[in-house]
Amino acid sequence: MTAPATLNAQPTLTFWFDFASTYAYLTACRIRAMGETAGVSIATRPMLLGPIFNAQGWATSPFNIYPAKGAYMVRDVTRTATARGNAFQMPDPFPANGLVAARIGMIAEAEGWGLAWTERVFQAEFAEGRDISELATLEDCLASVGQSSDVVLRSQTDQNKLALRQQTQRAAERGIFGAPALITSDGELFWGDDRLQQALEWERAVSHN
Amino acid sequence: MTAPATLNAQPTLTFWFDFASTYAYLTACRIRAMGETAGVSIATRPMLLGPIFNAQGWATSPFNIYPAKGAYMVRDVTRTATARGNAFQMPDPFPANGLVAARIGMIAEAEGWGLAWTERVFQAEFAEGRDISELATLEDCLASVGQSSDVVLRSQTDQNKLALRQQTQRAAERGIFGAPALITSDGELFWGDDRLQQALEWERAVSHN
Repeated sequence: MTAPATLNAQPTLTFWFDFASTYAYLTACRIRAMGETAGVSIATRPMLLGPIFNAQGWATSPFNIYPAKGAYMVRDVTRTATARGNAFQMPDPFPANGLVAARIGMIAEAEGWGLAWTERVFQAEFAEGRDISELATLEDCLASVGQSSDVVLRSQTDQNKLALRQQTQRAAERGIFGAPALITSDGELFWGDDRLQQALEWERAVSHN
Repeated sequence: MTAPATLNAQPTLTFWFDFASTYAYLTACRIRAMGETAGVSIATRPMLLGPIFNAQGWATSPFNIYPAKGAYMVRDVTRTATARGNAFQMPDPFPANGLVAARIGMIAEAEGWGLAWTERVFQAEFAEGRDISELATLEDCLASVGQSSDVVLRSQTDQNKLALRQQTQRAAERGIFGAPALITSDGELFWGDDRLQQALEWERAVSHN
């Protein structure tokens, strides 16, 4: 009995995001269910848009720099969230500071609870209007995904801070310039919540080759 | 016999674009058919992104200013065009100079052949790889929509040049910051080829109220 010529791994799409991203919130609301329907696993990849935007010459979100674009984004995300039955409110200030949430996300990713964490934090921020830079919010989110608040301390090691910076660097190297970004197992990049279905179909096609 | 309380006009979506826009090309390839399916008429609104981008501090297309975004756009439009069976090639140089084509588009809009003109010029530029700043290209396009090449001269009057500048100004006033933009009869703005179906549905709902 010989092994099959190729043994495909589980089809997996990586979901790259910054917790401040409104469009990544839309994706977080539906990526689990859509991945299950498509037979594609989701792997979360927290990153920081700050350094990526800085490299493009922006000191803050382009939605703040370009007011017409910012006003449209709020309207567009509100319309889409409403049509899908998702709550949505803009954080104040925008963008929210998701640094510690992203650091915790690195640990969550490594330990296999990345998607649950991602969903919970996005929900707290954009559906419940909570401040995700506050320790109390993060502790509540940790509790609701069955994790101890010790994770906050573990997330603040130099090693973990470095890991998040390196992941952000990898994002830039893979061509990511905004969020959400979706990358298939053959390295194909898709940008934006609009491209979620297309990215899942690409991954499914690639993984069946 | 009394007249009905309200007499709704034909549902109409306005399609705002610059002939240099790759995503507006994707929309031009399908808006006629999708509008017919939805029972919504399409009214073309040529505009110039140059002044709109200048107001945002950009001297050229953001796809040229931000290389990662530009590289992604080419890949994304190619993927989408391929999936829909549309040819696509990038103009060189990009963005193409569509000034005269847009001026002719103002006349076409006023005379009722706006959509045919729009489709033909986008096809020449992005499917056939022709230079839409060349008179020969514009004359061929005019011939294929059953118009005389005299329209080129008529498009170059001070009055018509002013009309295009004013239309661009109206675009900015209505919140447009990129192309394609779609505006419903109640003034709702949708940005991007991705939003075409949503905009048609919005217009249909509004016009049946």
